[in-house]
Amino acid sequence: MEELKSIKKISEAFAGRKNELYGQKDEGRKVFGLFCTFVPTELILAANAVPVGLCGGKESTIPSAEEILPRNICPLIKSSFGFKKDKACPYIEASDVIIGETTCDGKKKMFEHLAEMTKLHIMQLPHFRDDRSAKLWLAEVEELKKLIEEETGNKITEEKLKEAIDKVNNVRKLFYKIYELRANNPSPINGKDSLKLFQLSYLLDINTIESVLEDLVEELEERVKKGEGYSGKRILIAGCPMVAGNTKIPELIEDTGAVVVGEESCTGTRQYENYVEGYTIEKLADRYFKIPCACKFSNEERIERIKELVKEQNADGVVYYTLQYCHTFNVEGALIEKELKKAGIPIIRVETDYSESDKEQLKTRIEAFVEMI
Amino acid sequence: MEELKSIKKISEAFAGRKNELYGQKDEGRKVFGLFCTFVPTELILAANAVPVGLCGGKESTIPSAEEILPRNICPLIKSSFGFKKDKACPYIEASDVIIGETTCDGKKKMFEHLAEMTKLHIMQLPHFRDDRSAKLWLAEVEELKKLIEEETGNKITEEKLKEAIDKVNNVRKLFYKIYELRANNPSPINGKDSLKLFQLSYLLDINTIESVLEDLVEELEERVKKGEGYSGKRILIAGCPMVAGNTKIPELIEDTGAVVVGEESCTGTRQYENYVEGYTIEKLADRYFKIPCACKFSNEERIERIKELVKEQNADGVVYYTLQYCHTFNVEGALIEKELKKAGIPIIRVETDYSESDKEQLKTRIEAFVEMI
Repeated sequence: MEELKSIKKISEAFAGRKNELYGQKDEGRKVFGLFCTFVPTELILAANAVPVGLCGGKESTIPSAEEILPRNICPLIKSSFGFKKDKACPYIEASDVIIGETTCDGKKKMFEHLAEMTKLHIMQLPHFRDDRSAKLWLAEVEELKKLIEEETGNKITEEKLKEAIDKVNNVRKLFYKIYELRANNPSPINGKDSLKLFQLSYLLDINTIESVLEDLVEELEERVKKGEGYSGKRILIAGCPMVAGNTKIPELIEDTGAVVVGEESCTGTRQYENYVEGYTIEKLADRYFKIPCACKFSNEERIERIKELVKEQNADGVVYYTLQYCHTFNVEGALIEKELKKAGIPIIRVETDYSESDKEQLKTRIEAFVEMI
Repeated sequence: MEELKSIKKISEAFAGRKNELYGQKDEGRKVFGLFCTFVPTELILAANAVPVGLCGGKESTIPSAEEILPRNICPLIKSSFGFKKDKACPYIEASDVIIGETTCDGKKKMFEHLAEMTKLHIMQLPHFRDDRSAKLWLAEVEELKKLIEEETGNKITEEKLKEAIDKVNNVRKLFYKIYELRANNPSPINGKDSLKLFQLSYLLDINTIESVLEDLVEELEERVKKGEGYSGKRILIAGCPMVAGNTKIPELIEDTGAVVVGEESCTGTRQYENYVEGYTIEKLADRYFKIPCACKFSNEERIERIKELVKEQNADGVVYYTLQYCHTFNVEGALIEKELKKAGIPIIRVETDYSESDKEQLKTRIEAFVEMI
């Protein structure tokens, strides 16, 4: 089958992104660096500023980070911190303000160290899902709005907010569409390419993403029509984010001949699922508040959503993926394993970092799992 | 010098505590099991109920816990969970309700598993120290009050609350007094005995604690008058809780001939410092809200308090103690190390679990540290 042109296009866009971003800065646009999919990018876009994801997916900066941070915290946190410490990431360096949040212990406390190196604003993400917590979160979103307005000097008008909400909702719609197409067998796109979409959509300009996704939907529809794509055992990945630089798990899975048909992940469903259902700040806060992340107590919604996703994507099994030392996803993984097994859904849990050292062992386990299901 | 009679008395009281507690239950008093020093025990006492600490300090129940929980979370969490899973702790079994909180990722998510085994109420402890968070915490404390009233059938009247606040404040005053006495050189009490006080005060009846501490103050005053006590290098322990069953670090320190003169810990200063400064629920919530735990973002107060404690207790150095995989205390430890070194205060950081396997290595490091300071 023919190569996906839009995947090539997104890689090219990424190659030019650094210059484009610094060009946007030269035009006077402020850059907001983000560490989490909980931060409402609509507010940044509505102020004519640029959101850019900063989570680190590479091992190279971890040794430097470990000069300050403990070894036994998650590789994403260490990698990200190392990128700032070593000034090794153009996106971090381009950021006028970094917006952090209190999703997990490791990140929350890492930000105390990062605060010594950069301008930082931390959003308090509550632990609970109750009304009190929703109210607190709304206040945090309102405070972020104020901060963005002050930083940019641009008022976030109702009109601008509506425009931004429509724009991001449209990107969400396109991701939904792609997931629908991936439900086909054969799947018209593999997991490695899908992950690239999610990873780069944190980095690229929203207009680029939107246009690439529109093209991709057409290409995938074409493939589905022709019955082209990837057969083999169908795997849903569930768990931690797999940010740019980290493609270990989908590669290991697809090297066995299986195909990844969905990612219940911050680089996946948590990134696009649920629309902002109106044009107010309340509706905006509400959409983000509901993201089913393991950092919340407690998470029945997430368990249910994983079961649904298995059905929707016609998955044969779940690879539950935890970044090493990520307590929230790890401890919740045990609950999810139990519930999925109860529902007759095959699941394997893997915990890994950014190194190469456990690849052979993981390969053996994943191969055995794929063969078994 | 003569043995401390009150330390003997507290050990005897502990030996009889199980029967006493079940006796209190037989009288119709409800038992509330606690996992954190953030829970306002005054509310429980004011409802004529019994608070009892449940944190596990023993290795024995960890293998069982690891059948469900990941290996790489902190030993305190695993030990506690294992005690419930194996029904191995009379205090957990005696608890009518367990009150958890959202101090750290590991505990927060462990409670989701514990909820399947017991009646559980979780308090949301916010990440921040700002007004919004204080308000949320107050609402949590008010909700706890309601729950306790419902469980016990006893109204927490203003008078009962005042009584309980006075009672716990008096225990705080006695602990303050003991810390003052420990500032003497020689210190009239060693770290092993001091830790026993803190550990058992989570388990024993408040009246027993109060009476033991009163006697102890007299005994220590006597020792100070006579110039009796423990000489040697003076160490402040700072960091994670050392709950009943876990005496590893003070033992290792004092085996070198040094003496522990303070514990900046949940089994130490965080347990008693700061009075409830009034008789309202607001004042009560406020005292607990201010506890300088590493779970908060951010923690300048804690760093300052450690520096003050070094001065107040005439300490020669700090052993910063982290339970393995406790991200909050571990990551914050790096900041504290930097600040203490800046202030010319010697510090060594150790991370350990409940096993014996690292004892020799720790011994060597701590010996070298004590010799060096």
